[in-house]
Amino acid sequence: MKFNFKIIGSLLGILLIINGVFMLLCLPVSLIYQEGGVFPLIMSGLISAGIGAGLWWSTRKRSNNTLSKRDGYLIVTIGWLGMSLLGTLPYIFSGSIPNFTNAFFETISGFTTTGASILNDIESIPKGILFWRSLTQWMGGMGIIVLAVAILPLLGIGGMQLFVAEAPGLGPDKLQPRIAGTAKRLWLIYVGLTLAEFVLLLLGGMSIFDALNHSLTTMATGGFSTKQDSIAYFNTPYLQYVIIFFMFIAGTNFTLTYFGFKGNFKKVWANEEFRVYLIGVVSLGMAVSIGLFAISDIGFEESFRNALFQVVSIITTTGFVSVDYTTWTPALTILFFMLMFLGASAGSTAGGVKIVRHLLLLKNGFLELKRQIHPAAIIPVRLNNKAVSQEITSNVLGFIMIYLTIYVTSTIVMGLIGVDFETALGSVASSLGNIGPGLGSVGPAHNFAHLPAAGKWFLSFLMLLGRLELFTVLILITPYFWKRN
Amino acid sequence: MKFNFKIIGSLLGILLIINGVFMLLCLPVSLIYQEGGVFPLIMSGLISAGIGAGLWWSTRKRSNNTLSKRDGYLIVTIGWLGMSLLGTLPYIFSGSIPNFTNAFFETISGFTTTGASILNDIESIPKGILFWRSLTQWMGGMGIIVLAVAILPLLGIGGMQLFVAEAPGLGPDKLQPRIAGTAKRLWLIYVGLTLAEFVLLLLGGMSIFDALNHSLTTMATGGFSTKQDSIAYFNTPYLQYVIIFFMFIAGTNFTLTYFGFKGNFKKVWANEEFRVYLIGVVSLGMAVSIGLFAISDIGFEESFRNALFQVVSIITTTGFVSVDYTTWTPALTILFFMLMFLGASAGSTAGGVKIVRHLLLLKNGFLELKRQIHPAAIIPVRLNNKAVSQEITSNVLGFIMIYLTIYVTSTIVMGLIGVDFETALGSVASSLGNIGPGLGSVGPAHNFAHLPAAGKWFLSFLMLLGRLELFTVLILITPYFWKRN
Repeated sequence: MKFNFKIIGSLLGILLIINGVFMLLCLPVSLIYQEGGVFPLIMSGLISAGIGAGLWWSTRKRSNNTLSKRDGYLIVTIGWLGMSLLGTLPYIFSGSIPNFTNAFFETISGFTTTGASILNDIESIPKGILFWRSLTQWMGGMGIIVLAVAILPLLGIGGMQLFVAEAPGLGPDKLQPRIAGTAKRLWLIYVGLTLAEFVLLLLGGMSIFDALNHSLTTMATGGFSTKQDSIAYFNTPYLQYVIIFFMFIAGTNFTLTYFGFKGNFKKVWANEEFRVYLIGVVSLGMAVSIGLFAISDIGFEESFRNALFQVVSIITTTGFVSVDYTTWTPALTILFFMLMFLGASAGSTAGGVKIVRHLLLLKNGFLELKRQIHPAAIIPVRLNNKAVSQEITSNVLGFIMIYLTIYVTSTIVMGLIGVDFETALGSVASSLGNIGPGLGSVGPAHNFAHLPAAGKWFLSFLMLLGRLELFTVLILITPYFWKRN
Repeated sequence: MKFNFKIIGSLLGILLIINGVFMLLCLPVSLIYQEGGVFPLIMSGLISAGIGAGLWWSTRKRSNNTLSKRDGYLIVTIGWLGMSLLGTLPYIFSGSIPNFTNAFFETISGFTTTGASILNDIESIPKGILFWRSLTQWMGGMGIIVLAVAILPLLGIGGMQLFVAEAPGLGPDKLQPRIAGTAKRLWLIYVGLTLAEFVLLLLGGMSIFDALNHSLTTMATGGFSTKQDSIAYFNTPYLQYVIIFFMFIAGTNFTLTYFGFKGNFKKVWANEEFRVYLIGVVSLGMAVSIGLFAISDIGFEESFRNALFQVVSIITTTGFVSVDYTTWTPALTILFFMLMFLGASAGSTAGGVKIVRHLLLLKNGFLELKRQIHPAAIIPVRLNNKAVSQEITSNVLGFIMIYLTIYVTSTIVMGLIGVDFETALGSVASSLGNIGPGLGSVGPAHNFAHLPAAGKWFLSFLMLLGRLELFTVLILITPYFWKRN
């Protein structure tokens, strides 16, 4: 077996060129606000684009233009890592985050749309650099859409072939044209929704800069804010409801949103994962509001809004904070901790396990009770009214078991690195699920700055692992991957 | 479909007679130590045996003597509940635990071999009553052996048909003779091991009473002690190593122990679960000792002993405490918390998920990576060198998903009942896994007395659910169970 390193290099080159171009796109912001960052952004952009162009140029002569599945695995991981490494340059050159560990943590937290931050005073960072920070999430979101809807189903990862198989433009042809067609359609929706949120936030009185940044990080389910207090800073019902709405959309399968735009609501409602997602969010939101209303002295609308905001923010793995929910009551902290393992829809920009996987395995679990009584009957799990094959159930099972195994060993590792019980449990759940804030000393009202460097590197790795649906990264360290056939 | 209520009633009657007889067996202890409890024990014994005899007598005339699978499910749950209800009488009549909620919690914690206690001053309880308390665990252990090795495999629950299928005397015949044959052989070993530990503890200088009680509760992986400080009270290396050894044996598949006694060590070593159990316990014990040695100022032997003791105590779900491990370091607390989900061997008296289930699903998970690369190949999971059918994998998967779902919802329920984050996480993990001590305010140095009554009832339910491998209880509340065919 051999890899097509030339095409891998070429694709990486293109990604790094895009990286550089986006850095240069931050220049207008720096020039307008005059808070510094102009020269660092130019330098970073040129270095990234230059390295990218060099890679692209040196691999332009190739006899073979097809990507194998193995090449696919490799380019995804290398691409995300390469972007994150060069993405640190604006932070480092501008002195906003002089420490490389911190800069890498912040960048990979961006590109993986996690939203965990080491910044203690966000408002002190030049606006051009903050805009770069938001852009890393938005670019990460674009990458995820194409990954989840086009690449992972082809690679057959974690049941994705089943969950997002209805993507428009999918057919049994070559990798590249399919990806391109699907990606273009869905990116259009992504860009459109970002613009729509931007306008709605502007109408609610947000500044142009804040509205732009928050739309970018909402649609990516990223959760970076331009304010240290996150969304708690924008304490008006209108703004918060707008953000809730767009977080919810960002956590919806983008192919469903595509059908929604086409007016095909029947198809949207026919999707079981979407129904569970919608009903789950609404009922959890109601339940938490009632609980919050009962224990606090705030009014019902505010209780409802805070509850719904935090439920949607965690389930969609965005990680915006409208209020520190860990101060509410232990029961709700436990609930939110558990919600970190849910994840929103497959095919969205959300991280985590994803609702459809839980749904499939829960159905299978409860069917076991039926199988127990009728051992002779063959009782398959049904999803969207279709029987799911044993192969896919087994694949999803594999995904969840590996997720939990990684979760368990990682919390122990974080413990060894020296953080306390709640912080270990919360930081790993949050990083692996690409949420952002965790619990304890990395809770909603805190950040990750105080963690030891080893902890930051380890959590960075977990963000990447979670973002790339585990298998994409793990498969690279199996012997099967490197063995010749 | 109809139940054979007469045989169910008859079996329950026999169980309650046994319950009464064991209560009366505590009389000599009460008479010797003269601390009270004689009259309460006589009354309890007569009531339990009387009710049992009445049930047995009234159902003696029956045309049909066969148990269906459905009858099997019903008698297991009803049996455990009935024993636990009447098992409260000695506590209540003697005034040792006057409150019914507390008495029920202590009794079901006994019969499920959990070992969670609401007693604040164990030494003040009359010895006859304490002996009853230890006996509930020992009887629970006997019940579990026959359940795990004979009944559950027949009912096909949670993969048990695979894990303990090698039990001696198992063949495709009727339920009753098979159960009786298997049970007798394994109970002999159980009784023999209890006696052996009793003698070895006596030789180490323990009093007859303490040695007897601790052997009863060790072999049941129960963990009730006659001392408030649990095994920390008996701080001599010899005694602690003896208990470690017997906890380990109690956590071993009893059919393997049977083969061990017959000198067939090849068969023991050929068992994959046993190898993982042994190697896991030793390597975790070593790792924890090194950690403990590094952070404390105690010597290496003591570090090793404390570490190994707690590792074995948690993995075997015994729950004896030689030292409060939650004071060591957060990393170790997290480790022990995670170990609560492990469980020792299937077919042992240990509770929890069981190693073999984890092993099967982990293997399946990592094979998914291989399947990803070779999608056309059929790659089954192998256990003990045999391919495992998809049905069993799916069954085990169902078990784990239901286990986790119950875990998650239950911690939220405990939160609603009003306990803090760590206590909720720890108390549910410990109760569902039949371990005993949890974390936080129900940690190794504390007990469950302070919990609200609702919490005690809820945890009691979880102990029963976990002990009966979930499905046995849950199946009773499905429509499939009650529907006519």
